[in-house]
Parts: sequence; structure tokens; C-alpha cells
Amino acid sequence: MATVTTFGEVMLRLKTPGFGRFVQTKELEATFGGGEANVAVSLAQLGHQSRWISVVPKNAIGDWALAELRKLGVDVSHVSRRGERLGIYFLEAGASQRPSQVVYDRARSSMSALKPGELDWATALAGAKWFHTTGITPALSDGSAAATLEGLAAAKRQGSTTSVDLNYRQKLWSSKRAGEVMAEVVRFTDVLVASEEDCEQVFGIKPRTPEPKSGTQVRERYLEVADQVLERFTGVWCIAFALRDSHSASKTGWSALLADRQGHAFSKSYEINVVDRVGAGDSFVAGLVHALLVGRDQRAAVEFAAAASALKHSFHGDANLATLDEIERLAAGDGSGRVQR
Amino acid sequence: MATVTTFGEVMLRLKTPGFGRFVQTKELEATFGGGEANVAVSLAQLGHQSRWISVVPKNAIGDWALAELRKLGVDVSHVSRRGERLGIYFLEAGASQRPSQVVYDRARSSMSALKPGELDWATALAGAKWFHTTGITPALSDGSAAATLEGLAAAKRQGSTTSVDLNYRQKLWSSKRAGEVMAEVVRFTDVLVASEEDCEQVFGIKPRTPEPKSGTQVRERYLEVADQVLERFTGVWCIAFALRDSHSASKTGWSALLADRQGHAFSKSYEINVVDRVGAGDSFVAGLVHALLVGRDQRAAVEFAAAASALKHSFHGDANLATLDEIERLAAGDGSGRVQR
Amino acid sequence: MATVTTFGEVMLRLKTPGFGRFVQTKELEATFGGGEANVAVSLAQLGHQSRWISVVPKNAIGDWALAELRKLGVDVSHVSRRGERLGIYFLEAGASQRPSQVVYDRARSSMSALKPGELDWATALAGAKWFHTTGITPALSDGSAAATLEGLAAAKRQGSTTSVDLNYRQKLWSSKRAGEVMAEVVRFTDVLVASEEDCEQVFGIKPRTPEPKSGTQVRERYLEVADQVLERFTGVWCIAFALRDSHSASKTGWSALLADRQGHAFSKSYEINVVDRVGAGDSFVAGLVHALLVGRDQRAAVEFAAAASALKHSFHGDANLATLDEIERLAAGDGSGRVQR
Amino acid sequence: MATVTTFGEVMLRLKTPGFGRFVQTKELEATFGGGEANVAVSLAQLGHQSRWISVVPKNAIGDWALAELRKLGVDVSHVSRRGERLGIYFLEAGASQRPSQVVYDRARSSMSALKPGELDWATALAGAKWFHTTGITPALSDGSAAATLEGLAAAKRQGSTTSVDLNYRQKLWSSKRAGEVMAEVVRFTDVLVASEEDCEQVFGIKPRTPEPKSGTQVRERYLEVADQVLERFTGVWCIAFALRDSHSASKTGWSALLADRQGHAFSKSYEINVVDRVGAGDSFVAGLVHALLVGRDQRAAVEFAAAASALKHSFHGDANLATLDEIERLAAGDGSGRVQR
Amino acid sequence: MATVTTFGEVMLRLKTPGFGRFVQTKELEATFGGGEANVAVSLAQLGHQSRWISVVPKNAIGDWALAELRKLGVDVSHVSRRGERLGIYFLEAGASQRPSQVVYDRARSSMSALKPGELDWATALAGAKWFHTTGITPALSDGSAAATLEGLAAAKRQGSTTSVDLNYRQKLWSSKRAGEVMAEVVRFTDVLVASEEDCEQVFGIKPRTPEPKSGTQVRERYLEVADQVLERFTGVWCIAFALRDSHSASKTGWSALLADRQGHAFSKSYEINVVDRVGAGDSFVAGLVHALLVGRDQRAAVEFAAAASALKHSFHGDANLATLDEIERLAAGDGSGRVQR
Amino acid sequence: MATVTTFGEVMLRLKTPGFGRFVQTKELEATFGGGEANVAVSLAQLGHQSRWISVVPKNAIGDWALAELRKLGVDVSHVSRRGERLGIYFLEAGASQRPSQVVYDRARSSMSALKPGELDWATALAGAKWFHTTGITPALSDGSAAATLEGLAAAKRQGSTTSVDLNYRQKLWSSKRAGEVMAEVVRFTDVLVASEEDCEQVFGIKPRTPEPKSGTQVRERYLEVADQVLERFTGVWCIAFALRDSHSASKTGWSALLADRQGHAFSKSYEINVVDRVGAGDSFVAGLVHALLVGRDQRAAVEFAAAASALKHSFHGDANLATLDEIERLAAGDGSGRVQR
Repeated sequence: MATVTTFGEVMLRLKTPGFGRFVQTKELEATFGGGEANVAVSLAQLGHQSRWISVVPKNAIGDWALAELRKLGVDVSHVSRRGERLGIYFLEAGASQRPSQVVYDRARSSMSALKPGELDWATALAGAKWFHTTGITPALSDGSAAATLEGLAAAKRQGSTTSVDLNYRQKLWSSKRAGEVMAEVVRFTDVLVASEEDCEQVFGIKPRTPEPKSGTQVRERYLEVADQVLERFTGVWCIAFALRDSHSASKTGWSALLADRQGHAFSKSYEINVVDRVGAGDSFVAGLVHALLVGRDQRAAVEFAAAASALKHSFHGDANLATLDEIERLAAGDGSGRVQR
Repeated sequence: MATVTTFGEVMLRLKTPGFGRFVQTKELEATFGGGEANVAVSLAQLGHQSRWISVVPKNAIGDWALAELRKLGVDVSHVSRRGERLGIYFLEAGASQRPSQVVYDRARSSMSALKPGELDWATALAGAKWFHTTGITPALSDGSAAATLEGLAAAKRQGSTTSVDLNYRQKLWSSKRAGEVMAEVVRFTDVLVASEEDCEQVFGIKPRTPEPKSGTQVRERYLEVADQVLERFTGVWCIAFALRDSHSASKTGWSALLADRQGHAFSKSYEINVVDRVGAGDSFVAGLVHALLVGRDQRAAVEFAAAASALKHSFHGDANLATLDEIERLAAGDGSGRVQR
Repeated sequence: MATVTTFGEVMLRLKTPGFGRFVQTKELEATFGGGEANVAVSLAQLGHQSRWISVVPKNAIGDWALAELRKLGVDVSHVSRRGERLGIYFLEAGASQRPSQVVYDRARSSMSALKPGELDWATALAGAKWFHTTGITPALSDGSAAATLEGLAAAKRQGSTTSVDLNYRQKLWSSKRAGEVMAEVVRFTDVLVASEEDCEQVFGIKPRTPEPKSGTQVRERYLEVADQVLERFTGVWCIAFALRDSHSASKTGWSALLADRQGHAFSKSYEINVVDRVGAGDSFVAGLVHALLVGRDQRAAVEFAAAASALKHSFHGDANLATLDEIERLAAGDGSGRVQR
Repeated sequence: MATVTTFGEVMLRLKTPGFGRFVQTKELEATFGGGEANVAVSLAQLGHQSRWISVVPKNAIGDWALAELRKLGVDVSHVSRRGERLGIYFLEAGASQRPSQVVYDRARSSMSALKPGELDWATALAGAKWFHTTGITPALSDGSAAATLEGLAAAKRQGSTTSVDLNYRQKLWSSKRAGEVMAEVVRFTDVLVASEEDCEQVFGIKPRTPEPKSGTQVRERYLEVADQVLERFTGVWCIAFALRDSHSASKTGWSALLADRQGHAFSKSYEINVVDRVGAGDSFVAGLVHALLVGRDQRAAVEFAAAASALKHSFHGDANLATLDEIERLAAGDGSGRVQR
Repeated sequence: MATVTTFGEVMLRLKTPGFGRFVQTKELEATFGGGEANVAVSLAQLGHQSRWISVVPKNAIGDWALAELRKLGVDVSHVSRRGERLGIYFLEAGASQRPSQVVYDRARSSMSALKPGELDWATALAGAKWFHTTGITPALSDGSAAATLEGLAAAKRQGSTTSVDLNYRQKLWSSKRAGEVMAEVVRFTDVLVASEEDCEQVFGIKPRTPEPKSGTQVRERYLEVADQVLERFTGVWCIAFALRDSHSASKTGWSALLADRQGHAFSKSYEINVVDRVGAGDSFVAGLVHALLVGRDQRAAVEFAAAASALKHSFHGDANLATLDEIERLAAGDGSGRVQR
Repeated sequence: MATVTTFGEVMLRLKTPGFGRFVQTKELEATFGGGEANVAVSLAQLGHQSRWISVVPKNAIGDWALAELRKLGVDVSHVSRRGERLGIYFLEAGASQRPSQVVYDRARSSMSALKPGELDWATALAGAKWFHTTGITPALSDGSAAATLEGLAAAKRQGSTTSVDLNYRQKLWSSKRAGEVMAEVVRFTDVLVASEEDCEQVFGIKPRTPEPKSGTQVRERYLEVADQVLERFTGVWCIAFALRDSHSASKTGWSALLADRQGHAFSKSYEINVVDRVGAGDSFVAGLVHALLVGRDQRAAVEFAAAASALKHSFHGDANLATLDEIERLAAGDGSGRVQR
């Protein structure tokens, strides 16, 4: 297995138990999550040397965040300790027709205060075969945007394959600013992951086919977006999408598309009873990174990534704790859920 | 937003965690619920000045009940403190083919010991635009029946619109006694809410169409009942039904009907994964009261009430904690359950 | 109601809360389970004098196991106290496409150290009308295999009807050894319960019809297995199967077949939202034993057993805590899950 | 070990977790307690055939109460199932200078509705060597007072030794009524247990020595009360007191006195860190009953009873779960609290 | 009872369960606390119309804070909703020789962003007899310092008595800045509450007697500080101190001093087993405010305040939930902790 | 800070919540503990590169154990994965006069199945400055005894200082066998840690002074034992004792002695309110190892070790989570427990 690196923020996630509203609870379930940290955790479960590069404050809450990630097998020895606070997000889990609700309290986090030149990229990336980040990291601040580009450039120099999940967040920045920065980011990107909305918000790339009326049309629209992205960003080797068909907060359809200039493959589709959908996209990225690292072909890679992220929905917390064996069994077709004794 | 009043009993609800039997638990989840209190809570979430009129004992358990309702925004300053005890109901939540089970321990509650003349209705109703009660309140005792009529009469005099949910409970009284008392009650009722069974048990009003064989017939039967009720009770302005199509304890269909002498409207129908179905009917009433208070037309009102009560199924506890925004989004068609960030 | 006996091991079951992985938890839910103990608990709920014969260590954990079974109405006064330890199984509950995972730590339990001649069968079986055990008990060790045969022989002599659930567990013994021992066991068996896989693994009996392509074919295959078993084991009076059609860890179809040489009956089929599927097979046995003990005919017996075990899926823990009334209501067709007040 | 019987009410005890107020909690810890049930549980832990005679309602809450007592080894097969409800008591545990607070909701319990002649005493007492009840039982209602006398008379006829704990509760009856009834009760009593206040409230018996100024005087006052009781009630063989020297809700001194007409003995004194003091008096009775049943002399008996009840303070819940071994070790002087491996 | 007002920040308090470190927990107990909010809660328990003036963000966390305070009887209708976030503090409770540890994350809270002129003091203070704030509020920012002075001035104009707890926090500001601002604040202060350290840090006022060697000297030192304060700040009517004699995180001595220019009184002293010491100082203020409002003399006032705050140590959370009755019983001398039935 | 190694078994620790008996609980708190693992955790908190050498099974429970230790900063990359099971110990925490109770289920653990030659000591010990083990490790089996000697010999060769805690456990081996093996072990030991009882059980070394009658005599007896040990085992550089003066399960005195051939030092003494005393001895070892590693003199070392282990009593679980700063503050005299803000 390989040494992989991810770069981004982690937040303290404070969730009400069950499906409670904040006013109904006396305690909050405390875990830690963030796009790139989630990818790192998932890759650690799959057996990789998974290194997460970030900034967390030098206090007991920062210590806690590192301990939890270390527990899940992530190498946190390259995390910089500085700044004022760890970002927080509050979560009420939805059910049935009621969506989950996130309240962010992430402003002025240690990560967002990062300045270019503060991280020692050469050391942090030593020996790595992969570097992953998302559109959230450059969205945090100008400093973190510069650091993201710095990291991507260093990764390319050092020989890592790079992946970026667009992950457009309108509460963090504008479409305009996102478009400018992400165009720079994509220059250093080998593997791009996105949603249909991301591509429109960030790059103004829309499907040509109108609003979907059938499953076939939905797939067609994603392909149209993929084609345009690959056409515009010639350095990008391939693009991947997780296709969520959300029936309610409790039930969702789930499949995936992987496309490059030679062709594309859709994964099989899963009908999922949702335990926790936060982080599903990150688990998709991790599945994809693993599959590409171990040399799976396009079809096998998209099936592995789809199965990995289908399983994520069954875990509490942001991170996918599925094992290699569980993912491969599902990708191979066994989703019957019979007890493993 | 308006000042609204409701009148009825609250009970301490003691539920086993998850889907446990009593013998499986070491602790009981303690909340408070009762038809009219539930309506008051829901209306408070929607922004109304929501006043709950009741009787609770002058002890630490009574204090607790008031604190919990106050927390959820209900004005409890008109609750009378007297009597011996707060009623209790024990609850085991069902799942799949196993129904939930309620064990009542509500006899001789403070509310059931109420006598006419003990409440100062003029003060309690001051400034109110609406008054709501249910068929449970007069069922508790002769005294509470008299007080219910006293309250309804005062509300009409004072200018409130009145609503009554028939809510027939066979453990509290007989069909015969219910019929006599509720006929009196309905004389003061503007908006009547009922189930098909209520109308038959209390008023002997049955659908003409035989047992349903299709969805169309089910709707037809409700309309037939509505017509008969509106024919018999000429003071009633409109009648509303929540239509539950219960597949199991875990899954249910849900829609609604609102009918008056000018016409009727059925809401769209929801397929629900149930978190807690207790209090769904009360949340339907609250949604209806809100919609009528803010002047929605028949179709919009029934859609709002149906969406409100569909969302109730996603909350632990008797009360609907959905916000105005959540209800309106669902009524407008977004039930996809995507995370709100 | 009758005095019934079951013979087998109980284990401490340590489950992570909710759908958590071991690394995600700080506490384990502790209950006790084992095939024959589960049957005893279920029969006690149905009103029988239910006596469980076993061996548990003479320490505080053994005391705890007995207390929990005594709580649920099981007579544990014939349990032998000796040996070193109580077996343990660790459980992570699956959801959606992720299966539940069991980690056994049962080697060298008190039960597996049992030697023939150590139990006083005459006293233990006094007054009993039924004796039940499973293929797990003889699989534990040579000593427990000998004791199982000893018990079955004593039960037959004493006049009990006997039932055996094949319950093949590949981690405990080989197909070859299972085939030899279970052939002996079946010589003393009146009512046999099995799965399709059990019959193939233990007896090499396979359906003639190839891999199922439709529901009809699935049923046909089970009948073919039943016919062959009844043909080969002429002392067996009837054979029963629970038919699980597992869609995922969260959803399963469930029905049953009961067959003897005069004919067969399939139960109606249930679509189940799973709370906990462990022990479903045991609850099916208990339902069947009850129905046969009270003289139900073949069709009624299979419907009762299917309804009982459908309800099991709604309870946390290994044991079916459904009441006689709940099972009969479901067997009679009411699975709507409306609240029982 | 002997067959012992106790007669009295059990209540559902609903306690806030930790030291919380009701308004601070979302769940209540549910256990069951009552003076005579507590004694029965404690005697069962000590190895006796412990039979509890009572009345509980025929509903799921009544079933639960019996299951919990059965779990702890108590024979509940002679409990009558009738009446409307199980009494409840709510508990907030105090700490430091804040006392624990009990809110009773026990009126109209099944036990209080008992009428003389309803229990089959001959069967219930068969084989018993001891019969215990308290002053709470006759205080519940006239019917339960008559039944208490009925039971005591039957126990004496049948050959049981009888014990009564005065346990005066001013919320249940007046001093006057208590004095009349308890004078009758004491006519059938062999072993009397009381507090200083009990004797004054019920019988008007006060110490001659004025308010204590030193430890010696406290002891003197108890002896004076003992002498007067033994003088007035000539049928009473001995009288015992637990001497609580309560420093705060968290810390208490604890010792005991046993006196008869031949002499008296004080136990050693314990300084206790309180986990839960409810039921300490009942555990003292149980310790005394055990010691007398197994033939300990006065000094050994009072030491055993004091040690037993000192240990009770270390258990959550009303019941003393100390083992014979633990009590004897403490009575023999080892209170060091070193880990037992 | 009177209308009282307090002005200051509330924070979300996130505490590990029991005595756990952050790395040991999966959930955090969520309550709300802040000096002036704590005083408001305590005064509401004592029966006053307690109004809390503050600023909280217009999001679900802000709503939650208000709901919790409303639950405890505080009038939150004058709280301004604006700004970005609610401050947070993380808490690990210490035990024995290990102190509790607080990690603050309160920078840039809604309250700290307050500007003078943003609050409508006339409306907020209408009808009030008392106004309380602390040295924490002006320490948050220049804006909140200006608003504090604005509020104090308005309160004096409107006729309220004013109290201020110095509460010096070195993480929020320097001694120098504190000295300047608090000198202004004290100009509007009638009742001053402080610790020995506060007076030295903020005003440079130190006891003349050297480091204490005996209990008598400790008292002398406090009197010396009191004298100097009353001498320097001639507008201050009286000054009060809570005297903590902390033996460990689990045990503390506790008493109080109230002094004015006519004389002084020390309360009796309590030995306390600590459940939660956070907020003890605030409960002392609330006890003092109550006692002065209802016209107690100096000795009675200091005894009431000391008893109130002694009881605070027995409650989980920042707020004192002791009732008037409990405090008066303790002030009158009953700290025995016997169960109140 | 230095690289330190420890060698020994870890067990899954399953504790009832609070002070519950097994029969009172529904869940067990799951942590991991073992003498040498506890030392490793504590040294990691103090900033050392802490490496734990052990054997755990290759299953999900083994993974869990490693994750928890990794979380707390321990390097587990040299743990061998083989064997059948992880040992377990069940724990009921005592209170007041009731001692804690441990039920072991550790037979046939992976560690006990270790054979000499199976571990690669050269790699495992690379770079280490210290090697620690206890008398429990060789007591597990002949194989683990041989491996312990193998490890000690390798550590000495490689240049590590070695420490051994005698830790005699009579359930694991006899005094005779312990004496033989530990005499070998001590040949490789630089720093010996023991209790008075250990020395008598293992080496037959007893104090000359009779049973203690005063504190002075207690100290004298420990010195007598120390002298004899140092006389007999000439390779041992120094010997340390933690002196527990256990008043009850809730309160204990605690101090320490460190002695070598040049002299000795007693630490100051602490009066402790116990949260969890398991692992206190291990935390003493860790404190001592740290102090010696960083070059503290005898007096400073014994004070640091005593303060560290005094603080351990305030943490849930086997491990000492005190920080360097907390220990140094206490060793310097601040045990007041004032909140650290």
C-alpha cells in the first residue's frame, strides 16, 4: 500500500443524538470531520499510510482532534499547531422528509489563518504517491487559497498524483471568486471530483440536456458536464461524480460515474437506508483514490468507489470505516446484509 | 402572528429508549405531551403567541411540566396549580409489524379534578384569536366536560375562532356519553378535526361506500363522512381529516382532506419513515390553525397542514418542532432530504 | 400451558450501540443470548413453564446470566454451575448494504467443557412435554455432543416431543463431523428446523431445481429439500424452514414453510424493517413449538411461527419478547402498526 | 437457608441521573423499591428462599416490577395481580448540604386497594420461617391495615417469627391513627425495628435524656427508648435501631443497637461516603433477620446488620446487593476498600 | 417579588461526562452559562421576575440558549439577536488533587460585537428594581465596555439598585485596562462583589496582613481589603466576598463576608463535597441580591447568600437551582442531608 | 524526550457504570488496560516516544485495542498480531466500605500463548532508553516467562535501563513459582517497584518491625523491606514503593518511598477522593521512569512519581492522563483544585 497525503481543515462535529433538535438534547455527540480528513481516515482503513496535513490550535481541543484521527490510523505528525481555534459544526440529523441541518461556526479557525510559506511541504509530502484536497480549503481565506496552490504545486513537483473535489460551498465564497481560484487549482489537478451543481457554480458548465425526466437523461446530463470539463481543463486526466438520487433524508439512491477522454463507466446503483450521509462524497473520493492507486481499470474503479461510498451511509460520523473486504464484497454484488459470523 | 389558546391536559410521557420493552430498560425518556399542549407547542414554533390553559399539581413534577412547555415557547402563565398529580403515560415504541404500546396512568389527575367555575376564562382568553381543545378533555370527568363547554362558550363570546379534534378514546368514556357531550361541544365549534373512526364512534356517522378496495374509494369514504358531518352540524364551518395509510409501525402513508360546504381539497400524499408517530394528529391541527389564521385558501391550508404533520413523524416526542421554513419548503415540494448547510 | 425444556449454551452478547464500529464506542450493550436460551425466553413470554438446561461458571458473570434469564421468566434452577468462563460474542450491527459482524470468543466455555454423565437428566426433564436443542450444542466439543445425545435420549424416554434446529456453524466444526453427529441427533428428533444451507452442509441434501430465478422457484427448492430430508430421516415427523429474503441489513422479506409426509404449508410473507435480526430463527422455533403444543394445525402453526419470528426483528437483543396477543394479532393479519392505547 | 416472607408495596422509583433536578433531565432511572420488597431482595442475595407477598396491577408496568424482583432472586409467584396502578415515587438525589427529595405519587395503588380476605395467606406463607412487614403497609388504607393484621396473625399461627419496622410516614397517616393500628400490629411482633422519631410519633415514647450533646448521650437516649418499648410491649422479643449520624447528604455516620430484656449491644460505627441512602433501613432489617435466622448472638447479629446496611449505602437503588461474603468481611473489620481481584 | 435585570454574555458550556478528559469522551454535556445569566436563573428560582439582557446570534444555537434560559424561568424577551456566534467554553471537571480545566472559545461572540447605542435600555430596564453585571462584560471588547457603562448609567437613572461582581479574567484583558474601566464601572455600583485577587488585580488593593497562617488571619485580610475598597469608592454602599477554602477539587470550605461602613458580618462556614463548583460566585451574588431586595439585615443577608452558594456546589451546571425553601432551611442550620419525603 | 518501551499484556476492561453491580447494568464501559500498557500511555502523555510491545489477536477486538492505545499516543507498530483472543477483565467499582471487584477472563490470551523466539527484540527495542515490564507478564505462562527474560536480556544488551514492578498475582501463579522466575527477572532489573506484600509473597522478605501501630512504624517497615531487597539483589540500583493507606474504596492516603544504597526519600502524602484506583501503581512507575529519565534527584523523583500517581486516582480507566504541567503543579504543592481557566 502507498503513502497518501490530504490537505484541509478538520472541525469538531457536534451532533444531537438520534433525530433530536438542539432544544431537545442535553448532550452533543462529539466527533471530528472535514473533507480531506475524512478521505485520510478512509484511506487508512484501506491499509494505506495515510498522512493528513493541516493546522490545528495548540490547546486541548486540538490535541483531541489529533488523537481521534490518530486512533483511526491517520499520521498526524505533519500537522502544524498554531492559531486560535478549531472550527465547529453543529448537526441535527434529519429523517424522512426533514433534511439534516448544519450550523457552521468555523470562522477564524487555525486553518483559515494559514499563510503561504508556513508549512514545510517538502517534509510533509516526502514519499507520497498521492495528494488530495478540496475546494473548501482555498475557500476558507486568501491565505489558505495560496497555501493550497503551494501544496498542489509541491505535490506535482514531488511526483504525487493529485485529486481535487470541487465541493463548492456558497457560505464560504462567491461563485466568482471560486471560479478564479479553482481555475488555478485545476491546473495542478489530475483527478477531479465534482457534482453537477459544483461545475455550474464554479465553472459555469451546465448540461445541455434540459431538466431530467428519466434516469437515462440524468446520466446523459452528467456525461455532458464531464465532456465539457475535460475539454476545458486539458490537464485533468479524469473526472468523477457521485450521483445521489435523494428520495428523503432516510432513503437515497446512489451510483457513480468515472469519465476520461477514452470513455466512461457508470457504477451499479444502490438503494440506501441512510444512517448518516455526511461525508459520503469524501468516501467516494477515497474509494476512487484507492482503486486508482492499486491499478484498477475504469469500470472496476468506479464500482469500488461507488460501493465504498454506499457503505459510508451506514456509519455514524463523517468518516467511512468500511474495510477493504466489506467494500469488495459489496462491489462484487453481495448487498444482502446477512450476518457475518 | 396571533395569540392562540389551547385547553387540555398534559401528561408525563415515559418512553423506553429505542424500541425496547419495559423489561429491557433501565431508564425512561421523560417528556410531556397531551393533545392541546402539543398544538400549543407547534403553534409557538410557527411564531404565534401560544397560550396553554390547563391544571397541573403544585409540586416538582408540575413545575417540570411547565418548564418544558415554557422552554418550547408556550405561555404557561394561565395554568392553574392545584390537584393531586400529573397524569402519566408509558410508551413502548413499536417497529415494523409491532405496534407501539401505550399504558395510561392518568386517573385522578389535577386536570380531571377540575370543576366548572374554577378557571378565570376572561383573563385566560384575553386577546386571543383562536381557541382549541379536543374530545379528550371533556372525556376526563364530568367536571372537565363542563369546563370544556364553559371555555368554548367564553371563547366564542370573546371572539375567538374555535377548533375541536374529536379524538375519541374508548378507555376514557363510552360512545354514548361521548356522543351526548360532543354534540354540545360541536355547537361551539368552527373547525372540526376528526378521523373516520371518531365520527362513527361519537356520532354514528359512517361512509356509505363499503370497505375500501382502492385509494380512490378511501378518499370517497372520507368525503361522505365530511358531507354528513357538515350536514348535521350546521355551525361547523369546515372539517378536516388526516388520512393515515399505515403500512407498519415504521412506514406510513400520510395525506389530508379539508372540506367545507363550498368544496374540498386533498393534499399531496407522503411516504414516511416513522421516527415517532405520537402527536401527528395534533401537529396536523396546528398546521391547519396556522394556515387558516394567516389566511391561506383551502388548498394551501390543507397542504400546509399535511406537510407540517408529515414532518412531525421525524421528531422524537409528542410535539412537532418543525419550523415555518421547513414546513413551507416541504409543502412546496422539496422532500428530498438533502443536507441544509 | 406446558413445561418445556431447552438445552444449550448462553453467551454474553456485547454489542456496540446503534450501528457503531468497535473503535467508535465507549460502551458495549450487554445482554445474553444463545439459540436454546432464546427459545426458552420466547416460550416463557408465551406463558409456558420454560426450563433452560445448561452449564455456566460459578462467578459473578454466571450469576448475571442466570439473573437476566430468570427476569424473563425462564426457570434456571437446573443449570449446572461449573467450568471456567461464559462464552462471549461481540456484535456490530449492520445497516443498509453493510452486514452485521459477529466476533466469537466462546472457546473453552463452561458449556463446552461438559462431559456426559455430569447432568442429572431425570431431574432436569421432570414433567416436561418438550425438549429442544440445536446443532450448535453438539458442535462445541465432543463432550457436549455426547451430552446432547444423552439429553435427547432421556427426553424421548421421558416422553417429551423433541425438536432440533440444525444451525450449522462452520467455525465450530466441519461438514463431515457435523454430518456424523447430526445423523445421530436426528435419530431422536421429532421436529426438525433447518435452512437450505444447513441441509446441504450437514447432510449434503440439495434442491434439484437450479438457482432461483423467481419466487415460485425458491419455494419449490425448499420443498425439494424437505422431501429429501423426510425421506432419509424416517423418524422425523415434520420439518420447518424460515425463508429469509434479505434485501439488505435493514430490510428483509420473511416467511416460513412447514412440511410433513401428509403435505405442507407456506405462511404469508412479511416485509420487515429490521431492528435486530439475531435470534430470528430461534423465535421461529419457539413459535412453532408453541403452536404445536397447543394443537394448531399445519397452516395455523406455520402462520403463528412466521408471525412470531417476524415480530422478533422488532426487538433489540437475541430474544423474542412478543406477547401471545401481539403474535396472534399479526398472524390474523394486522401488521399496520397503529398505536395500541 | 430458610424460606422468608415479606409483605408490602413496591413502587416504581423514577430518579434523575446523578444529582440532577427534574428540570435538568431528559430521562429517569427506573427501578423498583418498597420497604418489604427491599428486605426480600436483600435476603435473596444472602441465599434465602425469599418470597414477597404483594398486590400489583395486571398491566405491563406490573409485569415489569415482578420481572425486576424475580431477576434479583425473589419469589413473586404469590403476588396478587389486581387493581389499577403501581405506585410511583420520584427522586432527586441530594449532595453535600442539599438533601434528597422524594415526590410521592402512590395514592390509589393496587396495594392500597387491598381488602382483607383477598389474599390466600395459608398458601403464601407455606414453609416460611420468617414474616416481615412495616408500618407503611397498614398506613396505605384501612383495607391494607386489616390485611396486615390478617397476615401477621396467619404468620404467627403458621409458626413464623415476625418482624416489623415501624417506619412512620406522616404523609400517609396521623400519629393518632398510627398509634392505634401499630399497637395492634405490635401484638403480633417478635422483632421490632424503629428509629427514635418513630417511637415518639407512633407510641409517644421519648428518651428521658435531653437533646444530645455528645455521642455517649445519643446512645443513652436510644437505650432509654428501647427500655420503654420493651416494657410496654411485652410480646416483643427484641428491638433494633439503626443510628444514623448524618453529616450531609454525601457523608453519614452509621451504627446500630440491638436490645432485649437480657441486655444490649451497639455495633461498631462506620463513616460512609453515600452513593444512595434510600433503603438503608431496610437493608438493616434484612441483615438482622439473616443473623437471627442463622443463630448469631446479639453482638454478632447487630454487627452483621450494621455492616450489611453500611454497605447498602454503596449501591444505586433501594436494594442492598451486598453478598454474604462482602458483609462478613466488613463485619470482621475490613473496610479498607482494596480491590478484590 | 421584584423585577430584576442582569446584563452579560451567555456561553454554550460543553463538559465531558463525569471526570473524563476530552480524549476519553464521545459526547459533551451541553448547557449554557455566564455570570449574569447564572444570576438571572438563580433569581428566577427564588421567585423574582428575572430579566436577562444580552446579545445572541440569530441561529439555531442562539435559539437553543434562549430556550434553556426561558425554561428556567428567565425573561429573555429583551435579548438582542444579532452577530455571528455564541461563545463556547469547554470544561473538564477535576477531582481530588486535579483541578477542573476550562478551554475558552469565546472570541468574536455576538455579545463582544455589541456597540453602544444598539440596545434599547429604557425598554429593557422598565420596571426593574435591580441591575447586575460583572467585570467580564466590559472585558469582552471596547464596545461591550461602553455598553456596560451605558447600561449602568441607565439603570441608576431609572432607579435600580446596581451590583457588580469584579470577576477579573486575565485572559480577557490586562490589569491596567481592567483598572481603568472598572473604576468607571464602580462609579455606578451600589453593591460590589469581589475576591481578594480581583481587588489586587483590578485596583491594586491588597491586604496589609501578610500571607495567612490561620483562619483568623484570613478573615482579617478580607476585612482589610473591604475597608480599602469602601474608602476609595465612596459611592459603593457595601462589598461582599465569598471565601473559598479549597482543599481539593472535591472538597472545599465556603463562607462569606458582607461589609459596609457601619460594620460587617461573616457567615457560618460550610464543608462542601463538590458536585460542580462553576458558578458558585454567581449564586452568591444572586443570594445576596435576593436577601437585600427582601430587606434582610446584614447578618441575615450574608447567611442567606452563603447558604445559597453552598447549595450551588451540589448542582450540575453553572446555575444554582436551589429553591427558597432549601436555602432557608440550610441558612437556619439544617445541613444534615436527610431525605425530604 | 526519550524513546521508552514496555512489554506486557493488554486486556479489554469491561466496567459497570457508576457503582453498579453487573445485574444492575445494561451496558459495560469498554476501555483497555494492563500494567505495562498503562505505563506506556502515561509516558506518552509526558511527551516520550512510548512504544508498547505485546501480542494481540488478529481480529476486530485486537484492532480496537491498538486503536485506543494509538489514540493515547502509544506506538503500537511493534505489536505482534497472533493468537486466539484478547484477555478480558470485568470490573465493578466499589464505594465507601465496599471494595471494587475484578472478575478475570484472561486465560489463553494471545499474550499467554507467546513462545520465546517469536518476537524480534532487536527491532522492537531499537533506539530505546528504557524497558519496563511487570511480574504479571512472566506469570501468564511458561512461554511468556521465557519471553520476558528474553526481552530483559535484549534490553540490557541494547543499553536500556530496565524497570520491573513485582506485581504478584496469586490467581496467576504460586509464590514458589513466582519466587523462582522473579529471581531470574530481577537479575536484569535496574529499578524495582514493589509493594510490601509483593516482597513477602515473591521473595519471602518481611519487615522486621511488627504490625504497624503508627505512621512512623509503617514507614520503618517499608525501609526494612527495601534494605533487604537491595542487600539480596545486588544488581538492583534502587527500589520504589507506593504507600497506600486505604481508608475505604472512596478515600485513600497515598505517598511513596524511593530507596537506594545511598539513602532514601519519602514523598509528601496525599489524601485522595478516589474516582478510579485501578492502575495507580502503574502511574507511579511511569512517574518514576519519567523523573529518572529526565535526571531528577531522588527526592524530586519520588515527589514527581507520587504526585503523578495521586492524580491517576482522578481519572476514569486504567491509565493516567495527567499532563506534565498538572503533575508538576501538584508536586510543587498546589492541590487546591481551583478551576484552571
